[in-house]
Amino acid sequence: MGLGDLGKRLLVGRKLRSTQLGETLLPKRVALPVFASDALSSVGYAPDEIFITLSAAGLAAYAFSWKIGIAVALVMLVVVASYRQTVQAYQSGGGDYEVASVNLGQSAGLTVASALLVDYVLTVAVSISSAAQYAATAIGSLQGHQTIVAVIATLFLMTMNLRGIRESGTAFAIPTYLFMFAILGMAAWGFVRLALGNLPEAESASLHVAPEPGYAHGLMGLAGVFLILRAFASGSAALTGVEAISNGVPAFRKPKGRNAATTLLMLAVVAITMGVGVNVLANLMHVRMAERPATQLLHADGTPVGPHYHQPPVISQLAAGIFDHFPIGFYVVAAVTGVILVLAANTAFNGFPVLGSILGRDGFLPRQLHTRGDRLAYSNGIILLAGFAIVLILAFRADVTRLIQLYIVGVFVSFTVSQTGMLRHWGRLLRTEQDPTARARMQRSRMVNAVGLVTTGLVLIIVLITKFSHGAWIALAAMAVLFMLMKGIRKHYDRVAAEIAIDTDEDMTLPSKVHAVVLVSKLHRPSLRAIAFARASRPDVLEAVTVDVDPEETARLVDEWDHRGIPVPLKVLASPYREITRPIVEYARSIRRASPRDIVMVYIPEYVVGRWWEQLLHNQSALRLKGRLLFTPGVLVTSVPYQLRSSRIAARREDSPWRAPGQVRRGGPGRAARERTGIRR
Amino acid sequence: MGLGDLGKRLLVGRKLRSTQLGETLLPKRVALPVFASDALSSVGYAPDEIFITLSAAGLAAYAFSWKIGIAVALVMLVVVASYRQTVQAYQSGGGDYEVASVNLGQSAGLTVASALLVDYVLTVAVSISSAAQYAATAIGSLQGHQTIVAVIATLFLMTMNLRGIRESGTAFAIPTYLFMFAILGMAAWGFVRLALGNLPEAESASLHVAPEPGYAHGLMGLAGVFLILRAFASGSAALTGVEAISNGVPAFRKPKGRNAATTLLMLAVVAITMGVGVNVLANLMHVRMAERPATQLLHADGTPVGPHYHQPPVISQLAAGIFDHFPIGFYVVAAVTGVILVLAANTAFNGFPVLGSILGRDGFLPRQLHTRGDRLAYSNGIILLAGFAIVLILAFRADVTRLIQLYIVGVFVSFTVSQTGMLRHWGRLLRTEQDPTARARMQRSRMVNAVGLVTTGLVLIIVLITKFSHGAWIALAAMAVLFMLMKGIRKHYDRVAAEIAIDTDEDMTLPSKVHAVVLVSKLHRPSLRAIAFARASRPDVLEAVTVDVDPEETARLVDEWDHRGIPVPLKVLASPYREITRPIVEYARSIRRASPRDIVMVYIPEYVVGRWWEQLLHNQSALRLKGRLLFTPGVLVTSVPYQLRSSRIAARREDSPWRAPGQVRRGGPGRAARERTGIRR
Repeated sequence: MGLGDLGKRLLVGRKLRSTQLGETLLPKRVALPVFASDALSSVGYAPDEIFITLSAAGLAAYAFSWKIGIAVALVMLVVVASYRQTVQAYQSGGGDYEVASVNLGQSAGLTVASALLVDYVLTVAVSISSAAQYAATAIGSLQGHQTIVAVIATLFLMTMNLRGIRESGTAFAIPTYLFMFAILGMAAWGFVRLALGNLPEAESASLHVAPEPGYAHGLMGLAGVFLILRAFASGSAALTGVEAISNGVPAFRKPKGRNAATTLLMLAVVAITMGVGVNVLANLMHVRMAERPATQLLHADGTPVGPHYHQPPVISQLAAGIFDHFPIGFYVVAAVTGVILVLAANTAFNGFPVLGSILGRDGFLPRQLHTRGDRLAYSNGIILLAGFAIVLILAFRADVTRLIQLYIVGVFVSFTVSQTGMLRHWGRLLRTEQDPTARARMQRSRMVNAVGLVTTGLVLIIVLITKFSHGAWIALAAMAVLFMLMKGIRKHYDRVAAEIAIDTDEDMTLPSKVHAVVLVSKLHRPSLRAIAFARASRPDVLEAVTVDVDPEETARLVDEWDHRGIPVPLKVLASPYREITRPIVEYARSIRRASPRDIVMVYIPEYVVGRWWEQLLHNQSALRLKGRLLFTPGVLVTSVPYQLRSSRIAARREDSPWRAPGQVRRGGPGRAARERTGIRR
Repeated sequence: MGLGDLGKRLLVGRKLRSTQLGETLLPKRVALPVFASDALSSVGYAPDEIFITLSAAGLAAYAFSWKIGIAVALVMLVVVASYRQTVQAYQSGGGDYEVASVNLGQSAGLTVASALLVDYVLTVAVSISSAAQYAATAIGSLQGHQTIVAVIATLFLMTMNLRGIRESGTAFAIPTYLFMFAILGMAAWGFVRLALGNLPEAESASLHVAPEPGYAHGLMGLAGVFLILRAFASGSAALTGVEAISNGVPAFRKPKGRNAATTLLMLAVVAITMGVGVNVLANLMHVRMAERPATQLLHADGTPVGPHYHQPPVISQLAAGIFDHFPIGFYVVAAVTGVILVLAANTAFNGFPVLGSILGRDGFLPRQLHTRGDRLAYSNGIILLAGFAIVLILAFRADVTRLIQLYIVGVFVSFTVSQTGMLRHWGRLLRTEQDPTARARMQRSRMVNAVGLVTTGLVLIIVLITKFSHGAWIALAAMAVLFMLMKGIRKHYDRVAAEIAIDTDEDMTLPSKVHAVVLVSKLHRPSLRAIAFARASRPDVLEAVTVDVDPEETARLVDEWDHRGIPVPLKVLASPYREITRPIVEYARSIRRASPRDIVMVYIPEYVVGRWWEQLLHNQSALRLKGRLLFTPGVLVTSVPYQLRSSRIAARREDSPWRAPGQVRRGGPGRAARERTGIRR
């Protein structure tokens, strides 16, 4: 990988430091697993959802399952085709948010951002819950405890991300490729056995599915159509994660757009192959699944299977059947599926800081999220994300089927708005483009995006109609709350910006004098240092001030002051209530009242400590004083630090670099700045 | 009350402001209720404890109850006599802590302080639990829910104290005098009825008390003696609160010491009268109480009263009997007893800041507790106090009898150490005193304190022996923890003081130059203000610095800078990881490395906001930067505040005065300082 090339391209006159190894651009073979894990992992639960939803109408409805699978595959092709246009048109990594903001305006962008944020939470909740299911099929003792397992897994992921794991390409590639080979290999072997005539049945094949009331005659009439649409909507959960690549274009090698588009295609091929393969095999092996297995699944004799029946996921049943002579194969499949689901959840933890950074830059979230290295801001975000996911897991008891109802609506809102934005994009370009070849290409892209818009719009409507009462309203409500919150934050920033904008030149008037005040309580090194520094700054007026909290101490201080001959006058302020803040603030105000054009510079010694509990013992009064002083216009507060020995521990700790998560997805150091040497003007 | 006098006495050349009305010295008639509520309230549970403890040996043991009551009264007389010496010898309000520290050293003082702190928590727990009992006797539906009632009452007290109620003398006087009149009146009426021959029996008089195994033959042998001693130890809970007056001597009018001593005597007379009266009447009215009433109290036919029997406190039973023709009297007695117990708990919330202030002054607790007006420090203390009390209430389910086991040991540790200190005190004075009248008086006082020491020491031993396994070990463990914590804090402060003590004169060397750096991110008013202030301070080198996080923004800034012709050079720092902290810290360090004798003054604009959530949106990066910069020696950080409009709300809020609790007990403004006008030297 050409670091030299990289260096010259991104920076003018300054080479990358060698410490930046590892944050380099990705080749397609590494980019595919990094960005595809989320999308591929949904094959672990999307086929299940189709069968589960159809089961309401009994066994006969299963016949539609592969047709629905084909429909979902077609939608995926359309969506991928649309995104291939997006990633080549917008290569900065802004993704759907950027497309919406640039083309449709602030509100559309915020809608997408809210949808994506809600989606992150649900990605964690759904993926972890599904992983818990797979864990329970492999380790029988976990059955019935999926909720606890899921919560613990989420906390584990949160902790790892708080510590700052390096999201390296290799760590993603191996498990993802293992997953791909395992599932494709299993499907291939399944078809081989089919050809050989010895494809066994699934373990649930002997069960009968009792239809729900209302579907006693199978899929008839409006109810039947509605059910098929519902199943299709659930199966569309397979499309979640496709947009991740559009956020990660900067991480690709050049030509970035083309490589990203190719990767999208690879993703689609693999995902569709896996999805359709699993779907078809599930039909051939007569997998039976239901939404409430305890009552809907019946034994051959008609008795319900009861509450102790633990419904294995489809892939689990396929593996158990296809590898019935090769038990290790079953555990391998269960393991890699569990791992890919955890990786998919991890993408949410990594994707959030990227999105948060962009939103912070635009002022929709606290601005400190924009500048990296603020470990604390990311930590808060990670904790919030994990917290909300855990709330969902607990509320829905790690039930993937119920969580999915919330999951899909956000994704398709994002898709639909994004396609609309792309249409606007092409329309705008076509108005000015003259070159016929380019025009033809743009019109082709516009057609693709139009088909994409119609498709995703249709699916969105289907999802809203079929899922709203099943839980989608929760997701929509959350999106609305986030939307208003972010709008409110932006309004605040706008108002402040208007308040502080420069309109006239009067802000450049210089104050006339500087009146320096040094706070001393005792005569010790920090005080002497503060006095020395204050003298060095050569103010117009310099005096030391102490507050008479304890008359004996004050008398001692005055004596020592005289004794040492300190060349700065000492003023004693009375304090009838034995507090230090009010007398000093009053004094500062009195100086300002006497000479309104002077500034008052208050020098406050501050202890720099190394351990957290030491902060409780020092500096508290100084902090409160600073806070109070800052309310008075024209008063500056200067902290004169005195580094205690214990601070050296902390200093060393602060210097070790902390890499914010998501570094890989942002394509390395990003646009590095050029340092201009020399003085301007 | 002569404010003018007060003014001239306490201050030289400065009169008290009129806003200090209300914090004046107390006459004895107001001081008695303020300081006696804690001690008097214990008559609400101490007689109960005597009976309950004796009940282990069955009915026959009750004969000892009045004798034990007399013994407790005698101990109280001795203790009060001893404290009369203390309050006249130490009039500063330091109380037992001061006596121990001055005369016996740091460890003894810390022992007393730990005992007092533990005692504060237990005062709240015991008093509130007892108040809950009285509430339940008056309001039947509260029976069985005392724990919840107690917790809610504690939270209520905590909230009131957090808001800062004015502990006014009148608020204390009325309920306390009501209580005294109610109990003394009830006792008097009881004796009148006795004389008239129609004193009824208590409601529990018909019950039989089954002795515990081991006491089948009543109070015999060692076990019997032990039981009597246990009952005596429990009854000594009546002495809690006597030391409060020694902490409040400054609040008395002159002659402070003599008035305090007289008030102590008044307290003793009232308390003993009430206690002995209640005890005697309880005997006369045949009150039956047991530690486990469900199994130990039997009906006439021998069946246990069972778990639904709610054992009313002694005073409750007395009132019910004596006022059987006058039901309002019962409710009045129950109500005033409940109120006085709540007031007693409140004294702990008010006493803690006083003790905390003294310990903070001496460096055993964080120093900011010493200077008043630090609302936050008090709030933390109040919350901690309430929290620990609630933990105890929950752990012991508001059971007064079990909580008492922890209560007494701290009090008597404090008494014993204090008496020892007083002995030392007199011994020291007698060594130098020549005047025979004074010597005689001192020797008399020393004899009193010696008797006090023997008495309290004996009681302490009895308490330790009889109560250790019943729960006193918990209190002792807590005292040990506090002791070590405070010693550790003091050791830390000593170490830091040694580190920062001035030993040579080299700290007075002035740095050679001041290199000012102004941080700008955009050109707006706060930035212009920071530049203007930095220029006004006339440093040797002045430059503005921005970090290149976003190349477009940086370019815009540079253009605008040139366009406005700002007379300060602008330097752009590269930031490959899009963070602002590290480049600035590196730059500051590079300046220091280049010229180690210069100081770097970093001017950082800071937004001053009014609402708490606005702080989340601004200043975060600035705060983190400040923290990091302070680790580098020779770097000062100056905050240039820009007051946003919303800050005016907060400014007004900060200006309203907040009175720390315990003001009344500290005798008003304390030793006010004298403001020295003019310049020294």
